[in-house]
Amino acid sequence: MERVSLLTDVRRTNDEIAAENQAFLRSVAKLTINLMSAPGAGKTTVLEKTILRLAPRYRLAVIEGDLQTSIDSERILAFGVPAHQITTGTVCHLDARMVQKAIAEFPLERVDVLFIENVGNLVCPAEFNLGEDLRVIVYSVVDGVEKPKKYPLMFHKADAVLLNKIDLIPYAGVELEELRKNVTEVNPRAAIFPISCRSGEGVGGWTQWLTQRIGA
Amino acid sequence: MERVSLLTDVRRTNDEIAAENQAFLRSVAKLTINLMSAPGAGKTTVLEKTILRLAPRYRLAVIEGDLQTSIDSERILAFGVPAHQITTGTVCHLDARMVQKAIAEFPLERVDVLFIENVGNLVCPAEFNLGEDLRVIVYSVVDGVEKPKKYPLMFHKADAVLLNKIDLIPYAGVELEELRKNVTEVNPRAAIFPISCRSGEGVGGWTQWLTQRIGA
Repeated sequence: MERVSLLTDVRRTNDEIAAENQAFLRSVAKLTINLMSAPGAGKTTVLEKTILRLAPRYRLAVIEGDLQTSIDSERILAFGVPAHQITTGTVCHLDARMVQKAIAEFPLERVDVLFIENVGNLVCPAEFNLGEDLRVIVYSVVDGVEKPKKYPLMFHKADAVLLNKIDLIPYAGVELEELRKNVTEVNPRAAIFPISCRSGEGVGGWTQWLTQRIGA
Repeated sequence: MERVSLLTDVRRTNDEIAAENQAFLRSVAKLTINLMSAPGAGKTTVLEKTILRLAPRYRLAVIEGDLQTSIDSERILAFGVPAHQITTGTVCHLDARMVQKAIAEFPLERVDVLFIENVGNLVCPAEFNLGEDLRVIVYSVVDGVEKPKKYPLMFHKADAVLLNKIDLIPYAGVELEELRKNVTEVNPRAAIFPISCRSGEGVGGWTQWLTQRIGA
C-alpha cells in the first residue's frame, strides 16, 4: 500500500487534500475521528477512557495536534497505543496538509479507529476538513449552556457531542437539559452523550455508539 | 474630540490600526482592557462581578466580541453599563479594524475603564493588538493545570491572569499551586488572581489591582 506523497502542491485547497487523506485513511483505518473541543474540555482524557474500553478488542492509533508540547501524545503512548504528535506552533487548528504530512511520517498499521485530536479551540478547527469519517466534539458542561449557540459552526458539523464533566453539575449549577436542547437546536442529528471521565458515567454509551460505527 | 474615521485603508497593518485605536482610546478612557479566555471560562461573569464592585465609583463601558448572538452585551446592558456588540460571524478573534469600527459606532463617553471582551478562544486573539492598555486572561481552573504551557502566547502576553471557578477545585481535583507555577513559568510578570465569581472569593483583590491601574 502506497503512503501519501509528501510532495504537496501549495495551490491545492484544504478540501482537495482532505479528500486524498480520506482515500488513504479508509485503506488503513475502519474509522477516522476528528476530535475537537475548547482547551481543557477533556479531549485527551476522553481518549484515555475510550482506549481503556476499546483497546482489548480494537486496534487504535492517535494523531495529536497541539500548539506546543508533546504532553498529550506521551499520555497516549503510556497506554501502549501508537501516537504521533503534530506541533502547530502558532497555528490554531489542524489542516489537511498537516495531517497528510503526519500520515506520511507515522508508521500507521491497519487499525480499527484512528483518532485525530485537534488543537483546543472551539472556532477554527471546524472550518478544516482533515479527511475524517466522523467529527466528535467534547464539551465541558462547566463552560455553560449557551455555547452551542455562540459557537454554532463547531456544533453544527458534529456527528457526536460528548457533554463531559457531568460529575461537576451539582457544584456548577448547570442545567443539563437546557444545554442538550441548545445542542439539538443547532444540530438535530448529533448524537449526544453526557459523560464523566472522572466517574465513568456515560462513557459506555459513547464507546458503544463508536463500536457500532466501526461496524464490528 | 474627533471620532476615529470609518474610512480605513486595507493596506494598513493591524498594529498600525491598533496604534490609532490606542491614541483615540486614551483620549476617552483612562484604561482599556482586552479581556480574553477560552469559551466558557467566565469572561462575561467576571465583567458582571467587576461592574458590581466598580460601577458605584467608576464610569465603565464594554465592547463585546462574539461570533454570533448578542447574549453577552444584553447581560452587560442589564447592569446599566453602555455596551456595544461586535458580531464577527466566523472570525475567531477581534482585530484592530473591528474595534476601530466599533469605536466609531459606539457613542463612547469619557469613561474610567473600557472593557473589550474578545471572542472565546485561547489561541488567535493573542496575536491581535486592539489598542488596549492591558491584557487580562480569564482561565477556568477546571480546564487543567498544563494549559499555560500548551497555549503559551496567550499567557505570555497577559498583564493579569484570573484563575476563575476556584470554588470547583475540591470537586475537580485541581492543584492550584501547580497551575500558578505554570502561569509564572510562561509569564513571570503577570499578576495572578485566583477567584470565584460564584462565591465572590478573590474578586476584591482583582478589582483592587484594577483600580490601582486606573490611577484613581
